[in-house]
Amino acid sequence: MTSSEKAKAKKEFEDVFLTLAEEFLATVRSRSFPNESVEWIKKSLYHNIPGGKMNRGLSVIDTLEILKDGKVSSEELFKARILGWCVELLQAFFLVADDMMDASITRRGNPCWYKMEGVNMIAINDCLIIESAIYFFLKKYFRQDPYYVDLLELFHDVTLETEFGQLLDLITAPEDNVDLNKFSMEKYKFIVKYKTAFYSFYLPVALAMHMAGIKEPTAFKQALDILLPLGEYFQIQDDYLDCFGLPEVIGKIGTDIEDNKCSWLINQALLVATPEQRKLLDENYGKKNPENVSVVKEIFKQLCIEEKYKKYEEESFTYLSGLISQLDESFLKKEVFNSFMNKIYKRTK
Amino acid sequence: MTSSEKAKAKKEFEDVFLTLAEEFLATVRSRSFPNESVEWIKKSLYHNIPGGKMNRGLSVIDTLEILKDGKVSSEELFKARILGWCVELLQAFFLVADDMMDASITRRGNPCWYKMEGVNMIAINDCLIIESAIYFFLKKYFRQDPYYVDLLELFHDVTLETEFGQLLDLITAPEDNVDLNKFSMEKYKFIVKYKTAFYSFYLPVALAMHMAGIKEPTAFKQALDILLPLGEYFQIQDDYLDCFGLPEVIGKIGTDIEDNKCSWLINQALLVATPEQRKLLDENYGKKNPENVSVVKEIFKQLCIEEKYKKYEEESFTYLSGLISQLDESFLKKEVFNSFMNKIYKRTK
Repeated sequence: MTSSEKAKAKKEFEDVFLTLAEEFLATVRSRSFPNESVEWIKKSLYHNIPGGKMNRGLSVIDTLEILKDGKVSSEELFKARILGWCVELLQAFFLVADDMMDASITRRGNPCWYKMEGVNMIAINDCLIIESAIYFFLKKYFRQDPYYVDLLELFHDVTLETEFGQLLDLITAPEDNVDLNKFSMEKYKFIVKYKTAFYSFYLPVALAMHMAGIKEPTAFKQALDILLPLGEYFQIQDDYLDCFGLPEVIGKIGTDIEDNKCSWLINQALLVATPEQRKLLDENYGKKNPENVSVVKEIFKQLCIEEKYKKYEEESFTYLSGLISQLDESFLKKEVFNSFMNKIYKRTK
Repeated sequence: MTSSEKAKAKKEFEDVFLTLAEEFLATVRSRSFPNESVEWIKKSLYHNIPGGKMNRGLSVIDTLEILKDGKVSSEELFKARILGWCVELLQAFFLVADDMMDASITRRGNPCWYKMEGVNMIAINDCLIIESAIYFFLKKYFRQDPYYVDLLELFHDVTLETEFGQLLDLITAPEDNVDLNKFSMEKYKFIVKYKTAFYSFYLPVALAMHMAGIKEPTAFKQALDILLPLGEYFQIQDDYLDCFGLPEVIGKIGTDIEDNKCSWLINQALLVATPEQRKLLDENYGKKNPENVSVVKEIFKQLCIEEKYKKYEEESFTYLSGLISQLDESFLKKEVFNSFMNKIYKRTK
């Protein structure tokens, strides 16, 4: 895709959000609720759902195009976009809740929803409404399809896996109690797999597979076996970029060190730190003060964490390319996965 | 049912919870998560799900018994109990979230889950896991049943209606900003219908109807048309008992006045208060101080709110009995609804 084709695809996807938001508000209005509650929901939808990179939502459409050799009717395209927005709704639901649990201040350059005037804990209910909207749209648009129940189960299953991942993250790296003894590479991999990879990588592809009429459990297993490691690779990149990426390129200033995040970088550092370095990490990790952050970054430098990452990135690329090249293409084309790889390999944002 | 039969039914229902909790924990363990996360979920399940009155869960079973003339097989009974626990899971999910949004301190005589040591905002994710457990059990036990998708949609729909009700409640009676101008009898009825009646009254009956093989949309509409007003009557009783019930009988000390609740009593008082009484209500409602509460209760006394309630209770009984007696029994027996009425009419707890 050329960059102007990409921009067009993105614009067409964004337009569907406006339709969906209006439909959801129409169902609220149909109950004759007081107008202030309709306005509240409208504000919540527009604050929390659009405005992200939309990679997850767009990949439903991209995957369907590949699975169907580009032969996607305009009706199918519209439905793929709706499923894409359902993924974005799931993400919005998680992010609103995560921001409250992490005591975050900003999201996508705006205040977190719960930090908006008058919202506070009502944000809990707002994120639940966003989650429920997923099932409202699935019922409205997919009820007649033979794979309707598969879509429902897929969203339920992925939601639960993500909640398990979020729990692991919360009890491994509590926002208010730094204890690096709780971290380990093993826990890190668990958190990434459950909290991120299922919903960000497997879900969009599995949705497109259902739309394409794929039924074989083997095919879904094959997708999972490639997409979960791919999701891990993506998250490790994210962790790297949070510390070493250029703020003007990634569009935010990383705060993983301040926020006591159980990231790939700190787990790598813990594996090789001397007792002296470890002591400094214990004393400085998870503190908001820029001086503490500098000490941690200095130790990352001493331990050549950036170089370890570069090596990991090469190895990971080789490993994932190998996984993809070995795929038996009876059900699924390699291109589904290569298209993901090409989007994320050596990304800088 | 005699009281010993009731106790037996309750005990058998409670035993199913132990089975379900163990099954859910087994699925967590099957992912080889660190043990502390399994223990965390176990603690959350046992703290939040059992220990209530279980009226909602038990009414699935009672309704099925009536619909099937007592001819319920032991397998059906087990499945009805599972659906009963799914209703209790939905309730637990809402209560954990509501307690956070209402800044409540205790629930069922224990600290609210989010108030427990080390929990705090993690309770958001814990309530989400409880919600997801509903779909885990529906999938496990009902996947092969022809009404499986009806169960899924029923839970989705009722969840969304309840979240709408919760939003109306939260913006009408914010915990930190008392403004009696926001209250009205019309809003009160909206809140009760959406926040309570759908999940407490309609849901258990509709679940039993699906199990009994009822398919006609008319039957579900008939159930809704009786159960929503019945739910309103039940909530008004609840509001009455909160203020005028005996703490040793209802098992708690009511705090609706302190908590700025949009209750039937305050809405009745607002309808008839003189400007002087209104001023006193404005100054004293929604304040934690016992002296403020006394002033409000004194005005309720002056305005004969208790007598108005007694009158309402009689009228409501007549109205609901009339609705039930007019029911065309082609699909549903009157006994389903009379059984509810008998359980709640003139209740003191």
